[in-house]
Amino acid sequence: MQFSQELKEDLSIRQRRLQDAMQTQGVEACILTTNVNIFYVSGIVYTGYYYLPAAGEPIHFIKSPQATPIENAVYIRKPEQITEILKDKGIPLPKNILLETDSVAYSQIVRLLAIFNLSECLNASVWMRKIRSVKTDYEIDQVKQCARRHELVYSKIPEIYRKGMTDIELQIEIERLMRLNGSVGTFRGYGDNMEIFMGSLLVGDNAQAPSPFDFALGGAGVSPIVPLGANGSVIQEGQAIMVDMAGNYSPWMTDMTRVFSAGKTSGLAYKAHQVSIDIHEKTMEVFQPGFPCAELYNLALEIVNKEDLSDYFMGTKQQAKFIGHGLGLEINEPPVLTPRSKELLVENTVFALEPKFVLPGIGAVGVENTYLVTNSGLEKITLFEEQIIELN
Amino acid sequence: MQFSQELKEDLSIRQRRLQDAMQTQGVEACILTTNVNIFYVSGIVYTGYYYLPAAGEPIHFIKSPQATPIENAVYIRKPEQITEILKDKGIPLPKNILLETDSVAYSQIVRLLAIFNLSECLNASVWMRKIRSVKTDYEIDQVKQCARRHELVYSKIPEIYRKGMTDIELQIEIERLMRLNGSVGTFRGYGDNMEIFMGSLLVGDNAQAPSPFDFALGGAGVSPIVPLGANGSVIQEGQAIMVDMAGNYSPWMTDMTRVFSAGKTSGLAYKAHQVSIDIHEKTMEVFQPGFPCAELYNLALEIVNKEDLSDYFMGTKQQAKFIGHGLGLEINEPPVLTPRSKELLVENTVFALEPKFVLPGIGAVGVENTYLVTNSGLEKITLFEEQIIELN
Repeated sequence: MQFSQELKEDLSIRQRRLQDAMQTQGVEACILTTNVNIFYVSGIVYTGYYYLPAAGEPIHFIKSPQATPIENAVYIRKPEQITEILKDKGIPLPKNILLETDSVAYSQIVRLLAIFNLSECLNASVWMRKIRSVKTDYEIDQVKQCARRHELVYSKIPEIYRKGMTDIELQIEIERLMRLNGSVGTFRGYGDNMEIFMGSLLVGDNAQAPSPFDFALGGAGVSPIVPLGANGSVIQEGQAIMVDMAGNYSPWMTDMTRVFSAGKTSGLAYKAHQVSIDIHEKTMEVFQPGFPCAELYNLALEIVNKEDLSDYFMGTKQQAKFIGHGLGLEINEPPVLTPRSKELLVENTVFALEPKFVLPGIGAVGVENTYLVTNSGLEKITLFEEQIIELN
Repeated sequence: MQFSQELKEDLSIRQRRLQDAMQTQGVEACILTTNVNIFYVSGIVYTGYYYLPAAGEPIHFIKSPQATPIENAVYIRKPEQITEILKDKGIPLPKNILLETDSVAYSQIVRLLAIFNLSECLNASVWMRKIRSVKTDYEIDQVKQCARRHELVYSKIPEIYRKGMTDIELQIEIERLMRLNGSVGTFRGYGDNMEIFMGSLLVGDNAQAPSPFDFALGGAGVSPIVPLGANGSVIQEGQAIMVDMAGNYSPWMTDMTRVFSAGKTSGLAYKAHQVSIDIHEKTMEVFQPGFPCAELYNLALEIVNKEDLSDYFMGTKQQAKFIGHGLGLEINEPPVLTPRSKELLVENTVFALEPKFVLPGIGAVGVENTYLVTNSGLEKITLFEEQIIELN
């Protein structure tokens, strides 16, 4: 495996962003060890520690004996070797440090602090999520490549539907199509409370079932160990089928929801679905780079209230308090589109907007698209038929 | 969802095991918050905190507003409410506490310690993994149910093989069979460095490719973000196809590896594969409850050395230093069968034994079975043809 020149340059940009932030805040070193952040800064996944000083080149301390295309790789057995090696190289030990305290286990952070003889650290989890939320050109290209596969898979759903299928049977055939079209399988989310397999397919009243996780919608699932999504019910004529399967065809993902129906569905479903589309259109119309997340939420809610659909908005028994979120290497990145967010959607942010409605007796409707904030507005990344598609 | 009487009684047994250990060690309270441990002690997954005093009933502090079949559920917005609620109930605050320090993020443990006004805690991750390694009757029954589906899916592999397939294409068809036969999808492992999708299928020289993860074997994978397993190569006549796909049909899992071949494979492959089967048979013959893990490792290595196959044992470029491991709700539980382990395989432990060989130019061979330690020896749980199965 070799890196392209383009990827090498992009990795330099990402490193520089982190170092600029470190220099601004007076932080002397950063150590990253989670797979997602190591991939972001190094271009590969390895088991070990990425050590970045505020200026100069990183050192990759690698525990797994893998061959890598990266420079400055040092093989270690245990993290205690890091400081010895830094001393051998004449690199002064840092007086303060950034560690991923929101995503690395307590005992591991305690161990790293002891190695550096420090009693506290700054939170690299928050920093990295902030830095990653604004994409480079390379990342944007990856997101767009992902979208093309995502669209292709959704376009084949009418071919695999058969009357009398259960929701999970339809999901399984979509999973197979996804994999045959390059889905990497693993669907990367942030946080312990975000367990999901390859996405969500919700039909009928299962769309109302609450789940323990912080996704927009729930579903009862088919096993108590995976309490989310399809529940094994036979798809009934007239029901709405919401397909929100993973866009994990590139390391940088897309998020796209489309609605299918078993035969024709109800008037309320078509109406609420059109309101979702209207929210997308209105959003594209008014959006300017730097738009506040909270205003997007409020814009959507205003339309929903005017159409008297608030009882169905983002769930019934359990209503999600956001209508969108950033995404990239993980499906749930900042910013989150909540009514009280203080964050702005700045240029080169990639985010998903998902105004959805859950209709008792019918299912969930609404469109989700992935957008890129450009220098003048919004570019829609996920381009696929938005009307409810009838399956027969 | 309602719990069966059997499950209720089993949950009491699990709670009592934890409380017995707490009382023995003088620990006053335990808080669990990871999905796997909450499922183990409560029978469901919820977002929140399971609070167990050394004596008496647990309290389930639940953040997600889900309906549950459990008693003593209290709904909270933030963990700071836990101590307030304990005080309201007249429950004294603990002077020491068990928290999952190996698997919960630093910032969350720091927050919990502050809530309880404590500066340190004991390691619930280690305790729970130890307790979970010895299975109850209910859990053993779940493992056996899982095995029946695992066997059924493997039996159908000859039907889905077509000449000219790539390794990943074959894997995708197996994934579909798995899901149609009840695989929950999500493949639960312990530790950040154990990312795997639905299992491993290794063909030809890809079996030699090292991966960053601590699995028995590696494989290059199809994407830099998921560097493990099948790499998209066309399966060539004569190659060995090692199938080690997840046995995740019940919350309690099985682990089973079988080898298929594209047409006939080489004499060395048949020989090494037979040595793996011999190791399994010898193990079953000599095994007594309480057998040391290290002795099982050494027994295997002795046979391998006698047959002059040590260069191929457990890899070539990267050789795993274990030949088996406990499993249950997670695929990698203690004990691990390493040459220096001090642990014993006590009654009701469920573990996988996987003596494997990687043969350059051919692929990986060897059998993996899941065993239960009974009161007199070993019971083989995964019952399926062990010879190399020829595909045409």
